[in-house]
Amino acid sequence: ISAPFHMELHNEGRPKFIEFPYVSSPHRSLMLDLVSTVETYFDSQLLPCTLPPDVQYYQNQGGTSHASLHIRSGHVSSPIDFILGSWIHCQLPNGGALNITSLSAYLNSSTDSPNFLMELIRSSPTSLVLILDLPPRKDLVLDPEYLQKFYEDTKLEAQRQLLEKIPEVKPYFSSSLYIRSVVSPTAILIRIESEKVERMEEIIEDHVGPVARQVLQLWLDKCASEKREVAETEREYLQKRDELVRTKTIEIDLASSLPRLFGPETADRVMAAVKEYFSA
Amino acid sequence: ISAPFHMELHNEGRPKFIEFPYVSSPHRSLMLDLVSTVETYFDSQLLPCTLPPDVQYYQNQGGTSHASLHIRSGHVSSPIDFILGSWIHCQLPNGGALNITSLSAYLNSSTDSPNFLMELIRSSPTSLVLILDLPPRKDLVLDPEYLQKFYEDTKLEAQRQLLEKIPEVKPYFSSSLYIRSVVSPTAILIRIESEKVERMEEIIEDHVGPVARQVLQLWLDKCASEKREVAETEREYLQKRDELVRTKTIEIDLASSLPRLFGPETADRVMAAVKEYFSA
Repeated sequence: ISAPFHMELHNEGRPKFIEFPYVSSPHRSLMLDLVSTVETYFDSQLLPCTLPPDVQYYQNQGGTSHASLHIRSGHVSSPIDFILGSWIHCQLPNGGALNITSLSAYLNSSTDSPNFLMELIRSSPTSLVLILDLPPRKDLVLDPEYLQKFYEDTKLEAQRQLLEKIPEVKPYFSSSLYIRSVVSPTAILIRIESEKVERMEEIIEDHVGPVARQVLQLWLDKCASEKREVAETEREYLQKRDELVRTKTIEIDLASSLPRLFGPETADRVMAAVKEYFSA
Repeated sequence: ISAPFHMELHNEGRPKFIEFPYVSSPHRSLMLDLVSTVETYFDSQLLPCTLPPDVQYYQNQGGTSHASLHIRSGHVSSPIDFILGSWIHCQLPNGGALNITSLSAYLNSSTDSPNFLMELIRSSPTSLVLILDLPPRKDLVLDPEYLQKFYEDTKLEAQRQLLEKIPEVKPYFSSSLYIRSVVSPTAILIRIESEKVERMEEIIEDHVGPVARQVLQLWLDKCASEKREVAETEREYLQKRDELVRTKTIEIDLASSLPRLFGPETADRVMAAVKEYFSA
């Protein structure tokens, strides 16, 4: 594939992705800010998105579900394996809509530093599930120094507690025990139910936003930048673990919901494209 | 050490241990029931407690803190490494008291099945922290079949949800990130604050008790009984992980609190005795 062709594919889906067309203004601003922070930080280390156009943007037959997917691989010299951004919008039978936006960053096996993961799930204008974490890439029980370096010294727990204190915040338990196992002990897994829409937007602007920016900044400063030696024997373990996490994540996140929301054909097409990146 | 001497030491501390003298009647009944269930189940597989008498029961100089510790090793042919039961009672400066009771069971490396862990922490008659879990002995992220077998198929999540539904129940986050990493994705980590003492006793009797008994029964049926082949290469990993978990647990649980509550001399004596069991 030649470079201009790359660029063309990249340019096609990108405006639609960064439009975040179905979410509220504070929600959109936050997503744009995070995406642009990551892209500015890594700049030329990130290759353009080369997903097929009908995976960069897709919808169901009835036109009630729309989605955008944007994946940019890291340059071979970069610790970034790839950055994945997405949004999904689905009209619900009750007249409402489900909106999911996500941004995640996967490092390659040149480092064992944690990844970055954020997902905002709105099943109504007054309801929000937030998943925000730096998922570890090692068994923390076996590596207290890793736990200390990435989770204690970074004071991630203080960020979690900032949100926990808000009266509308409740803990969120993923229905998947595997996802619960993948996240770190300082993972922010919360459900927010507000009485009014305005209050929800205020919570996103004044509380969720600052915490998400801070966690992303910690990830950029402490995980994505620093060189860490990974021994040859460790690397095999790391690749095996990364691959398993990614495979299971697709299975849990996409394999169950995409066919239902977009039909089997589109679901297959999208999953096949994502799988290429997810095999470590 | 001769057998009669064994028995003598055993008999000395045991009545004091099973007395659970400072906790309420439903709390005491629950602990007694759990201890007797485990002891009846394993029966002659459990050796008598051989801790020194001044570790089986100890107090501080002022007589405001009292504690009992009861450890019974498993017979060599048993999958049980040891069973540990304890209670701690400390008068608080405000006139109240802190009461902690615990029961845990550690398997040896003939099996990689999960351990059993329960702790009840009462910092006042209307406050209870419950830690109830079957902590995994492998990295669940790397072993989805282990996760399936011990946590999904056993429906432990349903037990967690039974307690979560009670209005007075809030999630409990251990201040130690290591402890958070050690527990399973279905761990019951809750704080209960009731308005009245009677309601707390009702919650213990009608809700905490049945769930604790059910989780213990699941552990007996699915973890402690079944033979599991552990390959030689796996065994080394298992021993390393078990040892690390135990060492860190002592450090976090005891090394910080015992000197404060019982003075450095008693703390050293107790910790030295416990460490002998905790080195896998």
